[in-house]
Amino acid sequence: MRKYRLLILLFLGIYTIQAQSPASYVNPFIGTNEMGHTYPGATVPFGMVQLSPETDTIQYSIGKGYIKDVYRYCAGYQYSDKTIVGFSHTHFSGTGHSDLGDFLIMPTTGNLQLNPGTAQNPESGYRSRFSHDTEKASAGYYSVILSDDNIKAELTATARVGFHRYTFPESAQSNIILDLISGIYNYDGKVVWSSVRVENDTLVTGYRQTQGWARERTMYFAMVFSKPIRNYGCRDDGKVIYNDFYRKFNTTANFPEMSGRKLRTYFSFTTKAGEQILIKFALSSVSTEGALKNLQTEIPHRDFDQVHRQAEKAWNTELSRITIEASDEKKTIFYTAMYHAFLSPTLFMDVDGMYHGLDHNNHHAEGFNNHTTFSLWDTYRALHPLFTLVQQKRTSDMINSMLAHQQQSVHHILPVWSHYANENWCMIGYHAVSVIADAYIKGITGFDPQQALNACISSATYAPNDGIGDYLKYGYVPSDKSSNSASKTLEYAYDDFCISLMAKKMGKNDIAGEYEKRAQAYNLVFDSSTGFMRAKRSDGMFMSPFDPLSTEKQGFIEGNAWNYSFYVPQDPLKLIAMNGGNKKFISHLDSLFNIALDEKHFAESEDITAAGLIGNYVHGNEPSHHVPYLYVFAGAPSKTQERIHQIINTMYHNTTDGLCGNDDCGQMSAWYIFSSLGFYPVCPGTGEYVIGTPSVEKATLNLENGKQFTITAKNLSEKNMYIHKIILNGLPYAKFIINHDDIMKGGTLEFEMGAKPKK
Amino acid sequence: MRKYRLLILLFLGIYTIQAQSPASYVNPFIGTNEMGHTYPGATVPFGMVQLSPETDTIQYSIGKGYIKDVYRYCAGYQYSDKTIVGFSHTHFSGTGHSDLGDFLIMPTTGNLQLNPGTAQNPESGYRSRFSHDTEKASAGYYSVILSDDNIKAELTATARVGFHRYTFPESAQSNIILDLISGIYNYDGKVVWSSVRVENDTLVTGYRQTQGWARERTMYFAMVFSKPIRNYGCRDDGKVIYNDFYRKFNTTANFPEMSGRKLRTYFSFTTKAGEQILIKFALSSVSTEGALKNLQTEIPHRDFDQVHRQAEKAWNTELSRITIEASDEKKTIFYTAMYHAFLSPTLFMDVDGMYHGLDHNNHHAEGFNNHTTFSLWDTYRALHPLFTLVQQKRTSDMINSMLAHQQQSVHHILPVWSHYANENWCMIGYHAVSVIADAYIKGITGFDPQQALNACISSATYAPNDGIGDYLKYGYVPSDKSSNSASKTLEYAYDDFCISLMAKKMGKNDIAGEYEKRAQAYNLVFDSSTGFMRAKRSDGMFMSPFDPLSTEKQGFIEGNAWNYSFYVPQDPLKLIAMNGGNKKFISHLDSLFNIALDEKHFAESEDITAAGLIGNYVHGNEPSHHVPYLYVFAGAPSKTQERIHQIINTMYHNTTDGLCGNDDCGQMSAWYIFSSLGFYPVCPGTGEYVIGTPSVEKATLNLENGKQFTITAKNLSEKNMYIHKIILNGLPYAKFIINHDDIMKGGTLEFEMGAKPKK
Repeated sequence: MRKYRLLILLFLGIYTIQAQSPASYVNPFIGTNEMGHTYPGATVPFGMVQLSPETDTIQYSIGKGYIKDVYRYCAGYQYSDKTIVGFSHTHFSGTGHSDLGDFLIMPTTGNLQLNPGTAQNPESGYRSRFSHDTEKASAGYYSVILSDDNIKAELTATARVGFHRYTFPESAQSNIILDLISGIYNYDGKVVWSSVRVENDTLVTGYRQTQGWARERTMYFAMVFSKPIRNYGCRDDGKVIYNDFYRKFNTTANFPEMSGRKLRTYFSFTTKAGEQILIKFALSSVSTEGALKNLQTEIPHRDFDQVHRQAEKAWNTELSRITIEASDEKKTIFYTAMYHAFLSPTLFMDVDGMYHGLDHNNHHAEGFNNHTTFSLWDTYRALHPLFTLVQQKRTSDMINSMLAHQQQSVHHILPVWSHYANENWCMIGYHAVSVIADAYIKGITGFDPQQALNACISSATYAPNDGIGDYLKYGYVPSDKSSNSASKTLEYAYDDFCISLMAKKMGKNDIAGEYEKRAQAYNLVFDSSTGFMRAKRSDGMFMSPFDPLSTEKQGFIEGNAWNYSFYVPQDPLKLIAMNGGNKKFISHLDSLFNIALDEKHFAESEDITAAGLIGNYVHGNEPSHHVPYLYVFAGAPSKTQERIHQIINTMYHNTTDGLCGNDDCGQMSAWYIFSSLGFYPVCPGTGEYVIGTPSVEKATLNLENGKQFTITAKNLSEKNMYIHKIILNGLPYAKFIINHDDIMKGGTLEFEMGAKPKK
Repeated sequence: MRKYRLLILLFLGIYTIQAQSPASYVNPFIGTNEMGHTYPGATVPFGMVQLSPETDTIQYSIGKGYIKDVYRYCAGYQYSDKTIVGFSHTHFSGTGHSDLGDFLIMPTTGNLQLNPGTAQNPESGYRSRFSHDTEKASAGYYSVILSDDNIKAELTATARVGFHRYTFPESAQSNIILDLISGIYNYDGKVVWSSVRVENDTLVTGYRQTQGWARERTMYFAMVFSKPIRNYGCRDDGKVIYNDFYRKFNTTANFPEMSGRKLRTYFSFTTKAGEQILIKFALSSVSTEGALKNLQTEIPHRDFDQVHRQAEKAWNTELSRITIEASDEKKTIFYTAMYHAFLSPTLFMDVDGMYHGLDHNNHHAEGFNNHTTFSLWDTYRALHPLFTLVQQKRTSDMINSMLAHQQQSVHHILPVWSHYANENWCMIGYHAVSVIADAYIKGITGFDPQQALNACISSATYAPNDGIGDYLKYGYVPSDKSSNSASKTLEYAYDDFCISLMAKKMGKNDIAGEYEKRAQAYNLVFDSSTGFMRAKRSDGMFMSPFDPLSTEKQGFIEGNAWNYSFYVPQDPLKLIAMNGGNKKFISHLDSLFNIALDEKHFAESEDITAAGLIGNYVHGNEPSHHVPYLYVFAGAPSKTQERIHQIINTMYHNTTDGLCGNDDCGQMSAWYIFSSLGFYPVCPGTGEYVIGTPSVEKATLNLENGKQFTITAKNLSEKNMYIHKIILNGLPYAKFIINHDDIMKGGTLEFEMGAKPKK
C-alpha cells in the first residue's frame, strides 16, 4: 500500500512541478486574433524556425487594394478563421508589415488538389476545416485535427528544424503538399525562383528566392520523410517546371528536378489507419547543404516527443530568467509576454556558423551567433533594455549581428528594420545606436566598443538616409524636404544623445560634445505658441495647417503631435520646463489621457484597436510607451502608478485578442514585463529605470552573473496600486529611479503598497 | 652608327620571333561569319572569361519564330554585321544552341541611351557602327573603333578577368553601360533576377540569375574602374529597381543598390581627349566575394599591355604543343584550329578552388581544376582524344570535373551537355564514358578509375534517361518509345564498348563481358534488306516509310540513315562484313560521297552550309567525321587519303566563313588538326589512330612527358596527297594504324608522299 501511495505522490509531484513550470503558463493564442499579429505555432527561444499554421494566404495585387486583408495575415494566422491552409516555417511575431511564410506543408488524403482553395469553399483546394476544440498550442508544440481529411497535425521544432508529425487515416493516397508559391504578404511575382530536388526516396532539398519586403531573400531547405515517398510531382502555374528542351524525360511525375516561379509539389504515400508520417524540415540562408547539416545535427533521430520535450525545456530555461508569484491569470499573461519577448530577433546562422550577409555573400560568424529580424524603432524602447537584464549574452550576439550588418551594408550603416540579410528601411531613426549605447553603458561586453561607436557615427551621419543630410544642415529635418520630419528630428536627437553617452564613457569628449549638442534638436521643432512639437519647414516657419490630433501629413508617424510632444526621453526635465513647469505639464499630460479621439482621427491611426486607447494615449503604438512614466519627473508618481495599473489591467488579457496592437516583435510584451515588475526604461542609454508600480507579488530575476534580484510588493491588491514605501536591499529608498547596476549586483527591492496615493 | 644598326637588327629580330610564334598565326575571325559560330574576342586557353563583341542581341519569343535569327548569334557575333552592341564576358565557341553573353559593357558619350537600339538605326540606342578596317583580333586581344562616338575599345583577359581599355574623346559625359538584360539566346523573362551594388567610387559588384539553356544559372561579378565614377544609375523596364517602400531615398541616381529583372545600369565620367578608362571585370560562379578575389589575384595592377602580353604568352605556350612547318596559310588555319580547340571546356572555379555545383551547392575542387562546357556528343570524337595527346593534365582535370558532376547529379550520371553547373541534355549518348575510357586506356592518371567506372556504369544504366530503360529491355531503343531511336542505339552500343574496354583493363571481366555484349546492339538496327541502319519498333518491325536520305522522323539525329549506317566505330570489320565485304562496302561508301542531296533533304539538315557537303557526306555535322577513314579498314587507304585531302582543302579556309558548320566547341577544329597530322581517332577508347594523309611538311608534338614526336611528309605537295611509304622511328611501318603509346614514347613518323595511289 505504502509503495503505491508513494508512486501516486510521485506522480502528483511531477504533475505539480510541470504545472508550475513557466512554460506551462504560456498561451501562444494570446494576440492571434485581430491586431496582435502573433502566431500560435511551434518554436524555440529566438529560433530560426517558426513552424506555425496559416489560416489564409491572401495574395495582394499592387495597387488593387487587398492590403487591408493581407495585413490581417502578417503572422499567417487569425483565430477567427475556420480553415487551415498549411504549416509554414518562418513567421514574424507581431509585426505590422510582413514577409516570410516560407515552405508551406499541408497533409491531405485522396485526389490531389494543388491549389489552396478558398476559406468559403475549402473543398476547392487542399486546405481543411478545423475546430479550436482540437487545437492545442504550448511553448514549443502545436497540434490540430484537420477535419476535412481527419488528419492529426503536430508540430515541434529545434532552433533550425521544424518537426512535423501527421497521423493519417487509412488511405491509398496520402499526400504531403509542399507549396513553393505560398507566402505571407504575397503577391503575384513575389517568388523570383523556386527549385526542388528529390535527392532520394526520403530526402528532398530546395530553395526559393522572393522579392518582397526583403528585396532579395533566398531560403534553402532540406526535408526528410520518415517513410519512402511512393510517388511525387508538381504543378507550375507559371508553366516552367523543368525546361526539358529535348523531351527526354517524363517530367510530369517522379522527375527529381522541379523548378520555376509558381511551383507546387506533392509527395504521396499509402497509409494504414493511424499511421504517422514525420517530416524533419530544416532551413538555411546559405545552401541546401547547410540546411541538411542543420537537420542532421539538430535531429539525428526520429523521436518527435523527445524534440517536443527539448523545446519545452528550452522555454523553461529562458522563461525562468524571471519567475513571478501572482495569480494563474497573471502568470499566463506574464509568461506569455516573456514568451513573445523571446521570439525575436531570431537566430540566422547554420550550425557551422555560416550565414548569408547583407552584401549577398555568405559569411562565417566569428565568435558570435548571428541574429536577424531587428524591428528597432519598436524594440529599442523596452525589448532590448529587457535583454540587457536577462539576455546579456544574446544582447552581445545581437550587437555583433548589427555590427556585421553595418560592415556588409553598402551604405555602411546599422540596421533600421532588417530581416534575412535585407534592410527594409521600415520606420525612422537610427535606433540601433540606442541598443548599442544602452548595452555598453550597462557594461555588456563581447563586442568591440570602438568599432561599435564608429558604426553608430556612420549611421548618424549618412546623409542620403531619410533626411539625415538635411538634419545635419538645418539642425532639424525640414518638413518640405522629408516626410515625418518632426518625428525624425525628435528621434534623431534622442539617438544622438545615446551616441554622446557612449562617447563620453569611452573618453571621447569631442564626439560626446558634438552629439550632446545634436541631442538638443528637439528645441527646434517645439512650437511654444501651441505648446506642441510641430513640423518645421526649411524656411524656419512651422508647417500649417496644424492639427495636433491628426496622424496624417503633420510630420509625424504612428502618432500625432500630442503623442510626439512627449518625446524627449533624453531630457524630461527640460521638456517639463518647456511645457511651463510641473503643474502645467501634469495637466497637459492628464489631457492626453482624457481627450477622446474622434472617429476621423481614430480612423487615421495605424496598427491599433480601440481597446488600445486611453483618450489620445495610444498604447498600441510605440511613441507613447514611456509617456505614463513622465509624471514621475514632474513629481506626480502616483499618477504614473494609476496609469500603469490601468494599462496593465485593461490592455493585456489572456484572450486571443488580448493584445491591443501589434506585439511588434515583443516590444508590447516587454513593456508589460517591465511595468509588471514595477519599473521601465524611459531613456535607454542612461542605465536608469523609472519606477512605476508593480503588479506581481514577487518577482525574481535570475541573472546571468549568477545573482538574484528579488522584487516584492507587500499588500498588493487590485486596489492597492499605489507605492507607499520602497526598500532597496533593506534600506529605505527615496528615489523613483533605479539603476541597472543596482539590479545586476543582486539584492531585494521591496514595495509597500496602499490604496491611496502617497504624498 | 654601329649601335643603331644593332638596334635595328634587334628590332627585326624581335619582329621575326614574334611573327613566327604560333599565336601570331591565329586568326580569331575564322568561323565568325555564318555557320562557324566562333567569336573574335579576347580569352586565354580554356579561360573562364571570353570577352567578345556582340553584334546583335536579338531576343526570341517562344513560339514566335525568331529562333533562326537568334541561332545566328550563338556566339554573339556575325562578321557581316555593321554595328556592335557591346562587349560581354561569356561565350560558347561554335555551338549550335546557346546561352551566356553575361554582363554586356558598352562605352558611349553624350546623352544616355539605355537601350541597345537596332542594327538598322543604331542612333536609336547605345550600339555603334564600326568598320572591320579598325578591327583587330589576335589570340588574347581584340580592338575596334566604335565610330558613332569615336571610342577605341580594346579587350584582353586573364583566366577569370576581362580587361577593357576604352579610349574616349573629350566629353563632359562619357558613359559605361552595363546591361544586365542583354544575353545570348535571350527571351523576355530569361533574366530571373539581377542585382548591382556600387561598393565605392571604383568598385561595383553584382550577379544575375538566368533561366535559359541552363535552367538555373547564377553568375557573379566584380568590376573595377580605373577612374572614380562621377555619377551612376539605372533603368529597369520591369519597374523594379529598388523597392523603396518608404520613399526614403532618391533611388533614381547614385543609389548604390539596384536590382530587378530588367536592369540596365550606367556609370558616367568626364573625359579629356584620348583619356583611357580601364575596367577590370571578374567573374565567379560562387559569389561577388569570389569574383573580387579573382580580380585582385589575377590583375593586381592596372597594366593592360602586361595582361595582353601574358595572354599572348599563354597562347604561345599552349599552341606550341604542336608546331608545324607549312605555308603561312596552312599555319594560320592550323594554329587557329588549335586555338579553337583550346577554348573549351572552360575553367569554372575561383582562384580559391570554389565553384558552384550541379546540386546548387558551392564546392571546393580537391586536387583538380574544375571545368565546364562539355559538348560531349561532339567532342568525344576528336577533341578529347586530341587532349589525350597534348592536354593530358587538363584531360585529368576534365575527367575529375565530370566525376564531380556525376556525384552532384540528382540522376547520378555523367554529363551529356553540361554548362555552368547545369545539365542541358542536348544531343544523345553517354559519351562522357568514351572520354573517360579513352583517357584511362591511354594511361592518363589523376582520377580514381574505380569511381570513374562506377560513374560510367551509373550513366549507362539510368533507365529514365533518353530511352536507356527501353534499350536495356529490348536490346535497342524502339522507335515508338523514343525519338532518334536508331542513332541512340548505335551510340549507346559504342559507349558500351568503351565501358567494356575500361572494365577489361581493370580486370573486371564480368562487367567487360556484359558491356561487350551490349556493344553489339548495332546488329539489331541493321536492316539487311535495305543495307541501312534503320529505326526499329518495339514489336521488332522496322519503322516505315523509310527514307535513307531524310534526317526527319527516321530515328536519326543530325544525320540520315546513310550517315549513321557507317556508325559502328567499335567494329568496322564487322560493319564491312554486314555490308557484303570490302568491295561492296567501298562502293557503298563511294556512293555516300557521290549522291547529291536534293533541296528537300538539304533543307532538313541542321547546322551546316552547302560548303560542308560532299554528296551526302556531311562534314558540318559530327556523325560523319570518322567515315572517310573507314576505307582503310576495307583495304582502300588511298580513298581515305583522297577524301581527307579533299576535306582539308575545301572545308577549312582562312576566311571569316572558313568553317563549313558549327565548330562545336572545337570538334571541327580537332578533326582538322588530327587529319592534318595524318591520323585520326576513329574509335576513341582503343588507343589507336587510323592513318589518313598528312597535310603539313613537318609537325612536332611537344609532349607533356618531355618527349617529342615528329611527323614529316616527304615530297608533300598539292598533288602528292598519297602515302607511298611510312617509316616509324626509322623502320618501315606496314600498318595504317598507329598506337597512342608509340606517339607518347616520342620518336619520328615519316611519310613519303606521291602523286598516285600506292597499291
